[in-house]
Amino acid sequence: MEGLERIGQQAKEAEPLLRILTEEKKNQVLNQAAEALIAHTGRILEANQRDMDNGRERGMKAGLLDRLLLTPERIEGMAEGLRQIAELSDPIGQVVKEMTPANGLKIRQVRVPLGVVGIIYEARPNVTADAFGLCFKTGNVVVLRGGSDAIHSNEAIVEVLREVLKSCGCPPCAISLLTDTSRETAAEFMKLNRYIDVLIPRGSAGLISTVVENSTIPVIETGSGNCHIYVDEAADLSMAVEIVYNAKTQRIGVCNACESLIVHEKIKDAFLPLLARQLSEKQVELRGDERAYGVVPMKEATETDWGMEYLDYILSVKVVDSLSQAIHHINRYNTGHSEAIITEDKNHAEQFLREVDAAAVYVNASTRFTDGFEFGFGAEIGISTQKLHARGPMGLEALTSYKYQIYGNGQVRG
Amino acid sequence: MEGLERIGQQAKEAEPLLRILTEEKKNQVLNQAAEALIAHTGRILEANQRDMDNGRERGMKAGLLDRLLLTPERIEGMAEGLRQIAELSDPIGQVVKEMTPANGLKIRQVRVPLGVVGIIYEARPNVTADAFGLCFKTGNVVVLRGGSDAIHSNEAIVEVLREVLKSCGCPPCAISLLTDTSRETAAEFMKLNRYIDVLIPRGSAGLISTVVENSTIPVIETGSGNCHIYVDEAADLSMAVEIVYNAKTQRIGVCNACESLIVHEKIKDAFLPLLARQLSEKQVELRGDERAYGVVPMKEATETDWGMEYLDYILSVKVVDSLSQAIHHINRYNTGHSEAIITEDKNHAEQFLREVDAAAVYVNASTRFTDGFEFGFGAEIGISTQKLHARGPMGLEALTSYKYQIYGNGQVRG
Repeated sequence: MEGLERIGQQAKEAEPLLRILTEEKKNQVLNQAAEALIAHTGRILEANQRDMDNGRERGMKAGLLDRLLLTPERIEGMAEGLRQIAELSDPIGQVVKEMTPANGLKIRQVRVPLGVVGIIYEARPNVTADAFGLCFKTGNVVVLRGGSDAIHSNEAIVEVLREVLKSCGCPPCAISLLTDTSRETAAEFMKLNRYIDVLIPRGSAGLISTVVENSTIPVIETGSGNCHIYVDEAADLSMAVEIVYNAKTQRIGVCNACESLIVHEKIKDAFLPLLARQLSEKQVELRGDERAYGVVPMKEATETDWGMEYLDYILSVKVVDSLSQAIHHINRYNTGHSEAIITEDKNHAEQFLREVDAAAVYVNASTRFTDGFEFGFGAEIGISTQKLHARGPMGLEALTSYKYQIYGNGQVRG
Repeated sequence: MEGLERIGQQAKEAEPLLRILTEEKKNQVLNQAAEALIAHTGRILEANQRDMDNGRERGMKAGLLDRLLLTPERIEGMAEGLRQIAELSDPIGQVVKEMTPANGLKIRQVRVPLGVVGIIYEARPNVTADAFGLCFKTGNVVVLRGGSDAIHSNEAIVEVLREVLKSCGCPPCAISLLTDTSRETAAEFMKLNRYIDVLIPRGSAGLISTVVENSTIPVIETGSGNCHIYVDEAADLSMAVEIVYNAKTQRIGVCNACESLIVHEKIKDAFLPLLARQLSEKQVELRGDERAYGVVPMKEATETDWGMEYLDYILSVKVVDSLSQAIHHINRYNTGHSEAIITEDKNHAEQFLREVDAAAVYVNASTRFTDGFEFGFGAEIGISTQKLHARGPMGLEALTSYKYQIYGNGQVRG
């Protein structure tokens, strides 16, 4: 725990130095960090090899091993990510609003860094460079707690980044990594609200709920997505087939994939056979309610299906009598991520956009677009499924707070 | 605990109904609520009398009894507060931003309510009407947990408000009050993250830290203010005397009062005697470091003084050799609330504004202006001392989140 206390203190000490870095300086560091990652590819791959060997020894699954694996191309990708962040405009110092209330004060609301950002994640070493890039560009210190499976890779990446910081005259403690990856230390880490201003967990639903339950640091909840597509009675059915097929199968393991389909009673007979045929190309398993499996043979859906984020080639199917029923079902079971309606009826579209409670609500498009890059943010630190501070894809702005700068000429309060 | 579960469920059920109320409807309810509070003055005063009697019996202090007391004028004040909130423009539905990224989607970022807001507060019954007004105007359901000392007053006010909601065709559960004011129930309340989207504690530092430590609901930390004024070497000394006098003595029990003075070495001999004379009018006790009590007789300040929020006629005094030292001291001991510099030097002012880490940073004005009304927000739900979501005075906007409404024409992700 002593180590944790020191990391917290050092992060807090670096904070005022980061807060006042110029955009030019920050971009210089980011570009040099990109070069350094590539220059030290050998060292990083060596460390990664140790993690991979350990993973295989412990019987890690192929999917996880693939997430853990680094290659020269993947390191080039991490470097390119840093270069792209350098290209983005710096939100720090932007004037959000100016006000001149009756008391004659001139008030400016100005964007500032959050301070110290904690990130808890699992076995994806690319998050290490990514999180550093986004936090550094926004003048934030970052403290990382990655998974034990990736510890050697993470250490190597952080060492390279710290060397760059040092050589550029910036505090190396702008990035820290907890090298003790025990659960006890993770639990203590979540209580460091005296040093850390915000904690962002990235990973499985289990990880995220552990953080929400235990953290005394303000948390931005990210991640899980039980996303629905509602095919309205006024839908263009071939468009609906394309969109559902894309949202379900283009990439199954992501939070913005479609997990549940809702179909209006009036078009179920025409639509479900079309869709089933298309989805059979990818062997998607359907699980439906009585009215759905009355049209197309499929397994019966149980109550737990409506709330499931399958992250698999499975889709639940519900038939409803009205748009309102669809909205009600979505608001009951969704996770506040991404929801879509397929309809040619403008009023239906507007009602859906207004009444569905989620970060991203779509008309006639795939839920797969909920993503910082697709939204034009240039990068993302995660997708928030809570309403406080940031909702949906989080770009650089989500890593900022603001302060009020106030100019007076002797005003006192009467 | 069963009662708590039911209150949470009912709040969540009311949420979609509140989300879609028109501004007109919301204003109608607010104005009728104002009338109803006045019409039921007798009933509310009767309930308040019971709380006052109980308070006196238990030996409640005069200051607390005064906060608890309602009078016809104070009820008129509560009603006027609701009428003023009705006059403010409704942030819900405002388009914050529009984007058209390369994928051809049209993305609108639109303000929406947070959902269900929990408020934990102490013995001030006026907060009950106030919190309802601000939450209702922003389409939020509110669940209140007031202090046990004010339970009868709060119940009477909530009953009146619920009658108005019902008569206007709105869900009465738009406002709920926990009538079980035990600590156990408060602790359970803080864990209701499945029903409540944000929790705002209002009251003592002890209350706020209990909430921060125990809540699984995202918290907006409000309140404590260890505010400094730095009198620079380039200060207008008579302006400095006026401002420090105002910030220290105009109202001592508030979070934006000045608690600590920092004085540049070069002007300490000229300034401190002037200030001490002025502050002696209100018998302000000074506690200073060696260089300060070398100029004006005063008690010696100890380490704990630098971190104290006195809320009393006491001021700590520190002498520094430079602006940087002053900033360093402030960033070490402040609570992120309000900080001021008195200077005629523009560069010093800019450095102070940039480098001091607080919600509100002033040049040549009293810290007492940090307040939603003074900032022109028309109302406030509290003053945030955290960086996440909202910082400084929180008006209606602080009670909103946003969603992305996205229009496509068949887009799928490649």
